[in-house]
Amino acid sequence: MLDFKVLTLFPELTESVMNTSMMKRALEAGYIGFEAIDIRDFAENKNRRVDDYTYGGGAGMLMQAGPVFGAYEEAKKRCKGTAPRVVYLTPQGSVFDQKKAEELSKEEDIILLCGHYEGIDERVLEEIVTDNICIGDYVLTGGELPALVLIDAVARLVPGVLGNAGSSHDESFEDDLLEYPQYTRPEVWHDKKVPDVLLSGHHANITKWRREKRLERTKERRPDLYEKYLETLNED
Amino acid sequence: MLDFKVLTLFPELTESVMNTSMMKRALEAGYIGFEAIDIRDFAENKNRRVDDYTYGGGAGMLMQAGPVFGAYEEAKKRCKGTAPRVVYLTPQGSVFDQKKAEELSKEEDIILLCGHYEGIDERVLEEIVTDNICIGDYVLTGGELPALVLIDAVARLVPGVLGNAGSSHDESFEDDLLEYPQYTRPEVWHDKKVPDVLLSGHHANITKWRREKRLERTKERRPDLYEKYLETLNED
Repeated sequence: MLDFKVLTLFPELTESVMNTSMMKRALEAGYIGFEAIDIRDFAENKNRRVDDYTYGGGAGMLMQAGPVFGAYEEAKKRCKGTAPRVVYLTPQGSVFDQKKAEELSKEEDIILLCGHYEGIDERVLEEIVTDNICIGDYVLTGGELPALVLIDAVARLVPGVLGNAGSSHDESFEDDLLEYPQYTRPEVWHDKKVPDVLLSGHHANITKWRREKRLERTKERRPDLYEKYLETLNED
Repeated sequence: MLDFKVLTLFPELTESVMNTSMMKRALEAGYIGFEAIDIRDFAENKNRRVDDYTYGGGAGMLMQAGPVFGAYEEAKKRCKGTAPRVVYLTPQGSVFDQKKAEELSKEEDIILLCGHYEGIDERVLEEIVTDNICIGDYVLTGGELPALVLIDAVARLVPGVLGNAGSSHDESFEDDLLEYPQYTRPEVWHDKKVPDVLLSGHHANITKWRREKRLERTKERRPDLYEKYLETLNED
């Protein structure tokens, strides 16, 4: 079982998301574990403040080392192993992708650290973080949504989680091509008919059509992936 | 005011996240608007089913065109303008980044469509979607988290939203360099001292130190951004 522990200033946010849909089912079935640890519980003052000004100047506040370290120690105590992965969600990380999701899905314990304000004191990050991860090249107000995105991507690769609802064997990103367009009932909707080939029952033609659509779409929407795909072809 | 309308099978999930932290304050202050519309309310059968098998074969179920279109029409009716942006969150989209966030933050209405199962019937996507967006090269169980990530990134750029809590003028990604390390009190933590230069009060030296750290960190963690940065230098 893969256990996620989230260190956060907003435990209710992460709990409410984990209590919905696929993640809820995965938790209830015991395929994954989840726990939110409130960093404020480790504040070193009565008013539960965990932020302070930045040395050397700069706008905004920084989360202090002490409370973050306290929350981390508590989380670590509750881990099965002694060397959990500790992921800090930060724009200053390397970019998360499907390969990283697969790597993390093989762990036993993952601690996720969510920052707020302008960031976290560098010293505690140096001491505890094993992976600095960024979910994309955009800026967010906090680390909670990135942590939940990472949990979702990783958890669905844990055997059993997707159950009958689908397979985690995804064509997207696997061979650098996007998925083909898909159609379901009714056969005609708003005067638009499902492409004949998909109704033909001719499997070889269907496979060929889908392959062509994948190439077309990747070229149009993700020229970067299309380039990568062509390079792979040339290597073969 | 920028209004977000989310078409989803899990309205409670998106509502609970929007009811926390910075997004809650932005909603309460009237800087942004938010509404979740339940796609199941537009199911064409009594048992609120909105998915069916894929033509041409394939594992998993697909969301049908009809209910998605119904939810879209309802959302559109409630928009201020007549031509809202309609964003479909999908691995088959172009990659979301800070530039796209800035572009979207200038809109009046954004409708976000969240997929589940294996995807959505292509015909309704062709008819209503203006932007296919992917938040990163990884696969998730549904479109809700990506929609919330997009809302967070876009909303924080709307004037007023960040208030006194910080500025949306971000160094990360702006000039292709990552942020420098930051420190707050206490001056010594776990035998680690804040770098002397930050305590010196010498602004020119602080600026120089921070610049060096940004270059170092970007080179190490994001060689792709470092390359882009070097190219920009050569162009100047």
